Amino acid sequence: MPFIRISMIRGKSESYVQAIADGLHRALVAEYDVPEHDRFQIVHQHAPEELIFDPSYLAGPRTQDFILVAITAGRPRTPEMRRAFFHRAAEELQRHPGLAPKNLMIVINTTQSNEWSFGDGIAQMASADWLAATGMASDE
Amino acid sequence: MPFIRISMIRGKSESYVQAIADGLHRALVAEYDVPEHDRFQIVHQHAPEELIFDPSYLAGPRTQDFILVAITAGRPRTPEMRRAFFHRAAEELQRHPGLAPKNLMIVINTTQSNEWSFGDGIAQMASADWLAATGMASDE
Amino acid sequence: MPFIRISMIRGKSESYVQAIADGLHRALVAEYDVPEHDRFQIVHQHAPEELIFDPSYLAGPRTQDFILVAITAGRPRTPEMRRAFFHRAAEELQRHPGLAPKNLMIVINTTQSNEWSFGDGIAQMASADWLAATGMASDE
Repeated sequence: MPFIRISMIRGKSESYVQAIADGLHRALVAEYDVPEHDRFQIVHQHAPEELIFDPSYLAGPRTQDFILVAITAGRPRTPEMRRAFFHRAAEELQRHPGLAPKNLMIVINTTQSNEWSFGDGIAQMASADWLAATGMASDE
Repeated sequence: MPFIRISMIRGKSESYVQAIADGLHRALVAEYDVPEHDRFQIVHQHAPEELIFDPSYLAGPRTQDFILVAITAGRPRTPEMRRAFFHRAAEELQRHPGLAPKNLMIVINTTQSNEWSFGDGIAQMASADWLAATGMASDE
Repeated sequence: MPFIRISMIRGKSESYVQAIADGLHRALVAEYDVPEHDRFQIVHQHAPEELIFDPSYLAGPRTQDFILVAITAGRPRTPEMRRAFFHRAAEELQRHPGLAPKNLMIVINTTQSNEWSFGDGIAQMASADWLAATGMASDE
C-alpha cells in the first residue's frame, strides 16, 4: 500500500533507474511488511538546477547521484521497522546499481488504509464486503 | 482545499488530460465537500518506464492508461465520504474520457486547515480576521 | 528537515527559479526553525495545461506566475510559526524575484522525525547512537 516518488537528476540509463526502483521495492518487501505485488512507483527526473540539496546536512558528501525518495505509506509501522527498512534500502541500492548510501534520502509519510482506492472505485482495505469476498484480512 | 497530483503516462491528448482533471474535480465537489472554485491540480506526465505499477494488485488488470491520483486534503472527512468520492470519481472518468475504473488509483493524504496559505502570505482558514472580513466560516 | 516541491509553469529563467527556491528557504530558516543547511528542494516545471488553478479562490487574481509549494515538514510547529512563515515567504518572494503574494500558495504536510533518513541508511533524528556521536539534540 505504499506508493513512492523517486526524484533524481536526469541522465541515468533506463536500466539504472530500473535498478533503483527494483531495489527500493525489495527493501519494502523485506523489511516494511509490503506484499510483493503491492508496487506503485513514480520516477521524477530533473534538470540539475531543479533538484536542490545541501551537500552535507546530516549525511554526505552528496553528489549529483543524490536521490530523494518520498514514500506515502498506507498505515503506520514501528520505528524499528523503519530503521530496518532504511538500512536495507541503502544496502540494496549500494549492491545494485552501486548507489552510495550517502546519496539516498528517504522520507515516509503515513496515511490510513481507508484513504486508498486501488481501482474500481472502491476503498479495498476499508470494504468489509470486498475483504470478505476476497478472503483478505483488513490492513487496519 | 485539496490539491491533487495526477500521474499518467505521456501521450494522451490535451483534451483527454483535461477531461481527467475535470472529472476528478466534479467528483470532489459532488461527494467530498469541496467548493466548486476550490480547484488546484497538477498533472505529471511520464515516460512509460517512469510510472511503475503492478498490473493486478487488489484491482486490474491495469493497462498503460493507468492513472495514480494523490490528493492532499485540507481536513479529515468521514470514511463514508471517501467511499462515495472514490465511487463517483471512477464513474465520472468512465463516462468521460472513458477511463476504465480498474485504471484509477486514488490516495488521500490529510492535513490541517491551518497548514494552508492560498496566497497573500496568510493562512486564510486559520485567520479570525480574514474569516470575519470575508464572512466565511472556518473550515476547522 | 523539510523537503519542498515547487510547482510552476515552464518558461522562467534559471535565475528566477533559483530566486524562488532561495527565498522560500530563507523564510523557512527565519520563521520555521529550519537549520540553514537543512535544504532539500525539488522544482517541477509544467506546461500551462498541466498546472490547473482557480484564478480567485480565497486569494488572487492568480496569473500564469502562480506557484504551488508543497512542504513536507519533519515535525509539527505552532500555528503562530506557520503564520509567520507564510507571511515571510510572501515577503521574500515579492522582494526577489518579484512574485506577487497572490501567486504564492503553500501547503504544509507534517510527518515525524523518525520517518526521515538523510542518508547512510539510518534515521538520524531517531538514532540515540547517532545523536550521541554527533552531539546533536533529538528533534522529537
